[in-house]
Amino acid sequence: MDLNINLPGTPARVSRVMVGDGLGAGLPRILSSFLGGRTDFWICDECVWSIWHERLAQWGWPEPGCGRVLLFTASEANKRLSALEDLAGRLVHAGADRGSALIAVGGGVTGDVTGFLASIFMRGIPHFQVPTTLLAQVDSSIGGKNGVDLAEGKNLLGTFHQPDVIVMDPAFLETLPAEEFRQGMAEIIKTAMIGDAELWEYLEMHTAVLARHDREPLEYVITACCRLKARVVEADERESGARRLLNLGHTVGHALEKLSDYRIRHGDGVAVGMVAAARWAVRLGRLPQDVLARLERLCAAWDLPVRIPAAFSSDEILDAVHADKKRIGDTLHFILPAGIGWADDCAGLDFSGLKEVLIGMRE
Amino acid sequence: MDLNINLPGTPARVSRVMVGDGLGAGLPRILSSFLGGRTDFWICDECVWSIWHERLAQWGWPEPGCGRVLLFTASEANKRLSALEDLAGRLVHAGADRGSALIAVGGGVTGDVTGFLASIFMRGIPHFQVPTTLLAQVDSSIGGKNGVDLAEGKNLLGTFHQPDVIVMDPAFLETLPAEEFRQGMAEIIKTAMIGDAELWEYLEMHTAVLARHDREPLEYVITACCRLKARVVEADERESGARRLLNLGHTVGHALEKLSDYRIRHGDGVAVGMVAAARWAVRLGRLPQDVLARLERLCAAWDLPVRIPAAFSSDEILDAVHADKKRIGDTLHFILPAGIGWADDCAGLDFSGLKEVLIGMRE
Repeated sequence: MDLNINLPGTPARVSRVMVGDGLGAGLPRILSSFLGGRTDFWICDECVWSIWHERLAQWGWPEPGCGRVLLFTASEANKRLSALEDLAGRLVHAGADRGSALIAVGGGVTGDVTGFLASIFMRGIPHFQVPTTLLAQVDSSIGGKNGVDLAEGKNLLGTFHQPDVIVMDPAFLETLPAEEFRQGMAEIIKTAMIGDAELWEYLEMHTAVLARHDREPLEYVITACCRLKARVVEADERESGARRLLNLGHTVGHALEKLSDYRIRHGDGVAVGMVAAARWAVRLGRLPQDVLARLERLCAAWDLPVRIPAAFSSDEILDAVHADKKRIGDTLHFILPAGIGWADDCAGLDFSGLKEVLIGMRE
Repeated sequence: MDLNINLPGTPARVSRVMVGDGLGAGLPRILSSFLGGRTDFWICDECVWSIWHERLAQWGWPEPGCGRVLLFTASEANKRLSALEDLAGRLVHAGADRGSALIAVGGGVTGDVTGFLASIFMRGIPHFQVPTTLLAQVDSSIGGKNGVDLAEGKNLLGTFHQPDVIVMDPAFLETLPAEEFRQGMAEIIKTAMIGDAELWEYLEMHTAVLARHDREPLEYVITACCRLKARVVEADERESGARRLLNLGHTVGHALEKLSDYRIRHGDGVAVGMVAAARWAVRLGRLPQDVLARLERLCAAWDLPVRIPAAFSSDEILDAVHADKKRIGDTLHFILPAGIGWADDCAGLDFSGLKEVLIGMRE
């Protein structure tokens, strides 16, 4: 016997993104209009809680004492299945069921762990994202990609699970350390480089006000990044095409993160990786030299690194690049910038050119 | 700023089911036509391997020495996230990547763990199911539901991830212990009861040949169960409606499994649960008395229990039923048989009637 189980497709979905000063204060009201009778369970970065709890209480957010707020230690070491299992057990004890929804409050790790957990808890419940770091607001909270690490590598397990709503209040960035802010700036520069020339020019002209964390320019920049990422995710939710462009700078960046045992942070790695990609593109005649110079200047303005630390040889970086690339099959893809606001997904490149680039970028 | 990310729906999918004597021998050929260039990694119940390895080698199946076969201890204790993490690490070391596919060879636990792992490995790769127990062939391998346990309860984490192909060879049942065979018979009786009167009559008339594990009647029964389950899953993949009918007998069954600390097996629990549901339906005037008698006779013919063990009080069973039901929200659903081949999903029942039923069923 031979039969087909014909499964209908799933209907179109909408993920809502809201950016604005004051949204944090309005969150309980906003959520209630989206929860539709579901019980809300909050997974909150304990650092965010410790800094913000008085204000959150004023805003009418639930408190840990009520049983629906789970504090979470948002560290890379906790971005593991064991942390998911621990949170899942706490949720069951707190009374969560298939009729619940999760709300992530924190940075990328909290968002990833909560999104992943929501996708597997009782075979999937909705979730909402309230990103509190610049990196999470401009990049990781949008698009539904989540993941946890294995001992063998980062983000090797995960799902695509779109949040129903993503609520971003730049107010949270007030208390974000400068080093964290810089990590977000790297992704903002990347976003501008691959698809938003206007944002790029805005960044070149507004470094000072952004560095002061002025709300209006921050809101402009976050909004621009969300718009571009939303467009890319709409076109290619599962990263089989256009979404790969978002990986500009990430290949060499990941290699450096990994080789440094993650002492080099994600944004810093992406900055070096973008410069490497731009230099390679210049060598290949795909990018004007002056764009590379503008990229290096913009990174430098934010104290983002643009050279390869002397501790890492070009060969070991190339080996790490190849190991990482293997993960997407036999075809090697590399994202190369082609101008301000324009990048290409290149296949079939001869990687020997990249080695020359890396050698030329050493500190 | 307020924007919508409009995500297109996903296209229709097909899961292929093949049932037949000799399919095991043809598996390498069958798979190669479905793999489409993906590398195959096999997760194989070590018991199946130890009993069948010589025959599997004759059939040209890969062997553990080749690096693409991972032996797995298929126990309830291993149906945990930690087992998934262990298998995921072994897969990475073996060279699995986004371009791989997993093949599950074994019973329900192996199928669940492999299906869940495939759904989260590198954010999702395809998988194939080769069920080797009667329970897995007639029920658990079809429909894409998977799951692992938490300390707090069974199957609390999981996904829906349809296998591309499910290949069933009744030959594997040759070496299945009688106790395992009986667990599968309970789900077969359930399937007939909720939707296949013809299968029911076949079962009543073919107990002896089925008990001898004759291939032809086995193939008939497995095929009938696959057809019905395929129809139900097509109508309601995510168990929000029609698929709930498959849970006939499972509510009281789960309660008994849990209270006995899983010494009462799944099929045995389902048998008692079906009888409880049928008795309740008779009390409510929803089912003719003679159908209940036929159900009890058919269960008894397979040594399936039809009474509540004296060790468990009716109150503790009711408490466990309520705790289980809570998982699907505030509305209580209970599946009641309405005839041979016909069941209803009943809401708003007064559970006091169930208590009387349970009291009347004590050993």
